[in-house]
Amino acid sequence: MRRFIEQWEALYASSPILRFVDINLRGVGQVMFQDNPLTGLLFLFAIAWGSIAARAPEVFLAGALAVATATLAALWLRVDRRALNAGLYGYNGVLVGLALATFITPGPLLWVYVVLGAAVSVIATLGTANALKPLGVAALTFPFVIVTWILLLATYGFSGLAGAGLPSAAVIAPVELLPEDSLGWAGFVKGVLLSISQVFLKGSAVAALLLLAGLAVSSIPAAAFALGGAILAVVTAHLFGAESDLIVGGLLGFSPVLTAIALGATFHRPSLRVAAYAALGTVFTVVAQAALDVALRPFAIPALTAPFILVSWMFLLPRQSFDEGQSGGADSGAG
Amino acid sequence: MRRFIEQWEALYASSPILRFVDINLRGVGQVMFQDNPLTGLLFLFAIAWGSIAARAPEVFLAGALAVATATLAALWLRVDRRALNAGLYGYNGVLVGLALATFITPGPLLWVYVVLGAAVSVIATLGTANALKPLGVAALTFPFVIVTWILLLATYGFSGLAGAGLPSAAVIAPVELLPEDSLGWAGFVKGVLLSISQVFLKGSAVAALLLLAGLAVSSIPAAAFALGGAILAVVTAHLFGAESDLIVGGLLGFSPVLTAIALGATFHRPSLRVAAYAALGTVFTVVAQAALDVALRPFAIPALTAPFILVSWMFLLPRQSFDEGQSGGADSGAG
Amino acid sequence: MRRFIEQWEALYASSPILRFVDINLRGVGQVMFQDNPLTGLLFLFAIAWGSIAARAPEVFLAGALAVATATLAALWLRVDRRALNAGLYGYNGVLVGLALATFITPGPLLWVYVVLGAAVSVIATLGTANALKPLGVAALTFPFVIVTWILLLATYGFSGLAGAGLPSAAVIAPVELLPEDSLGWAGFVKGVLLSISQVFLKGSAVAALLLLAGLAVSSIPAAAFALGGAILAVVTAHLFGAESDLIVGGLLGFSPVLTAIALGATFHRPSLRVAAYAALGTVFTVVAQAALDVALRPFAIPALTAPFILVSWMFLLPRQSFDEGQSGGADSGAG
Repeated sequence: MRRFIEQWEALYASSPILRFVDINLRGVGQVMFQDNPLTGLLFLFAIAWGSIAARAPEVFLAGALAVATATLAALWLRVDRRALNAGLYGYNGVLVGLALATFITPGPLLWVYVVLGAAVSVIATLGTANALKPLGVAALTFPFVIVTWILLLATYGFSGLAGAGLPSAAVIAPVELLPEDSLGWAGFVKGVLLSISQVFLKGSAVAALLLLAGLAVSSIPAAAFALGGAILAVVTAHLFGAESDLIVGGLLGFSPVLTAIALGATFHRPSLRVAAYAALGTVFTVVAQAALDVALRPFAIPALTAPFILVSWMFLLPRQSFDEGQSGGADSGAG
Repeated sequence: MRRFIEQWEALYASSPILRFVDINLRGVGQVMFQDNPLTGLLFLFAIAWGSIAARAPEVFLAGALAVATATLAALWLRVDRRALNAGLYGYNGVLVGLALATFITPGPLLWVYVVLGAAVSVIATLGTANALKPLGVAALTFPFVIVTWILLLATYGFSGLAGAGLPSAAVIAPVELLPEDSLGWAGFVKGVLLSISQVFLKGSAVAALLLLAGLAVSSIPAAAFALGGAILAVVTAHLFGAESDLIVGGLLGFSPVLTAIALGATFHRPSLRVAAYAALGTVFTVVAQAALDVALRPFAIPALTAPFILVSWMFLLPRQSFDEGQSGGADSGAG
Repeated sequence: MRRFIEQWEALYASSPILRFVDINLRGVGQVMFQDNPLTGLLFLFAIAWGSIAARAPEVFLAGALAVATATLAALWLRVDRRALNAGLYGYNGVLVGLALATFITPGPLLWVYVVLGAAVSVIATLGTANALKPLGVAALTFPFVIVTWILLLATYGFSGLAGAGLPSAAVIAPVELLPEDSLGWAGFVKGVLLSISQVFLKGSAVAALLLLAGLAVSSIPAAAFALGGAILAVVTAHLFGAESDLIVGGLLGFSPVLTAIALGATFHRPSLRVAAYAALGTVFTVVAQAALDVALRPFAIPALTAPFILVSWMFLLPRQSFDEGQSGGADSGAG
């Protein structure tokens, strides 16, 4: 594994084109916090598989175009080179591209939208990072969510863009489960896998396995927290009485998966206390997912990863120190 | 009064259980900014009376369970001991418990919700405090509001939780007063008292008197600003033509009461200029209460104390110095 | 030009009344970022013309009353004298007055609202400035928007105030253009001019020319970016397929005009790179305008200048340095 990376690094050092490819692959990997080009490549395979399986290859193309646009925009804006090389200006872009092509009917203006959204996502990333620096927390996928929400909402005012895949506006009312609503073992397993693949807006078990593989080549704890987070999310949603269709489709689990990786393996060193903290955050993200799905019903747009952002910020802002023998946790992130 | 507190402090110093009780009582007192266990005890009597009078003793139990859960969660999270002892990690918890039990039909999952919400309220308090530290303003009841909103919204997606006491989603339209709508003296007095008791989600004049007594044993100015704020709120709401039912029920006055105490007696030293500033804030909180009641109609959730938070932050962020002979007010809170 | 200003400065130095007039005129000028009393005077003519042409002279009166109230409130609050003299505590006030009188039926409570809103706008300006100081970005018209939204939403709960000019609440659905919907040259020119006059909530070509003149006497680049921003906004909105009625009425262009001035001429020194950055921001503000118009449909209130604020903050927070040979752009605004 390490040898592969070393060889790749030697290779791209000599070629601006391979360097550009490397930045974009790491950008894809950073969607799940991995600064690793092989992870990005496996994630890209997952996106391609999921897009083709859903007979929507334009979604894959939009994601690829968006991440490349974001990298070019970042170069034009002369961003910090180290952050750029780590893929930190690409992950919001690729998600913007995937989401726009998922929720909007293909057409020339869709591609204008993809390029516009990807470029603005870099500016939003720079701004969010600056705004959050004093607080010691990361931008997460907030730039993706805010830019995509604005672009999707605007389709209702633009006749040139049709939001074919968008939810309809609906009045909020309590859900009522049909008597035949039940979650069997097959549904449980499918719900767990699709909770992982829906991070990239894909409902595909194969894509989920590719994503888990991509995580594992970079970080075993990250893969473990992703899987554990997905299981915990499905169980929690079922116990609270959520609709099985949503659970099996992974639509209540993708934000909790991200929370689990973020709190469990990315921003804290894994430990028992950390796992307990991440589990609490994961359970609350399931609640936040249901809440935001409800709150956005009048607006006819999807929640995207907003529940993950909301809860992860809530749980990261305390800047808890879980390392024994270390003091001053509350201020350690402020430097 | 002071002797009573001194005796109590000597007593609980020797007993971890009494210390735990003391922290929780102060937590209840901090809902109205009082770091005083006797205030907390009187507030607890008010909650108990109001709950039993409304034939909903589970609301009192939920509040008590929630504040204890919050204190235990704070201990597990190893929060700053001085802030914990002052009750600063309990007041959001008790409000989460009261609100959840008020708006959700009793059942096993309600109690899961109360424990979950109370624990998360501590994390939200830590995070809000960190986020606001550079701005020099307090978290107020923001953690309570954000956590409760998320939990209440999610009930519309979970068949295991039914929001029996929640408002229905409704399209926004102007209010029209019936010709017989009028506010007599009895209504005025009831409106003033219930504006105070609704701080704890109670519609009870006896509870209001207990709350005023609890304030008075800790701070006469706080009690005076609470009463003055309630009167000003009822008068303002009536002059603007609000529905008398809402006014008499105290539903337009509880946030203004909190604003009046916060701006008049807690975060500024009382004076004529301060009273004028607090009065302006109190009047604007009545407007904000009406505004948020309208804005939340599509979401079918209550405003809780959000109007108080919004206006108090607006009026505290300028960090006005009202003390004569002191300079540099704009920066005095930044240290 | 410079001689006129010098004479005026000598004149008002000797008279508190003229000094008060000067502060208020600069406050009106600051709506478009100009610290210039002559600009303010020309803007005031534009407001007067637009109000009288629309047979609503009370709108002009409300604007004048509001800016005077804001200045008096700022004096009472002992704000920083230099910022006061530059009109920085007046521009939100004048907009609050214009908006309230535009959207609410005249009556005694309208004037209470105007005075209340103008006074609170000063507090909101102080608070926003404090909150944003660490981020190195300006308050823009955020205080105007937040205060006006609260006051307008509350009218739906107050029978004493009727929002005659407010939009109706509506369920979000895609726009469908009629076949006869088209934008001719006359519509294009009108759309460009009204995009400028709608900054002051006026649909008048004469007012637009007065505003352009007011900009030009203070800053030719500001006038150029205003005109360029308006043209770019009309073209963008048309290409995306927005309704021609909205485009011709200037309702999709006033926020982009403000973004263009802010990003192109106020917070950056004009250059080719800056113009490209401002153009991207202007295009995205058109999208944000459409998005917020949609998002606010359930709330039955207008977007005001929120799209401008949202996008300008997004584009200013990166604190991009566009000056060649200067380093440390990311931190230059933090001092």
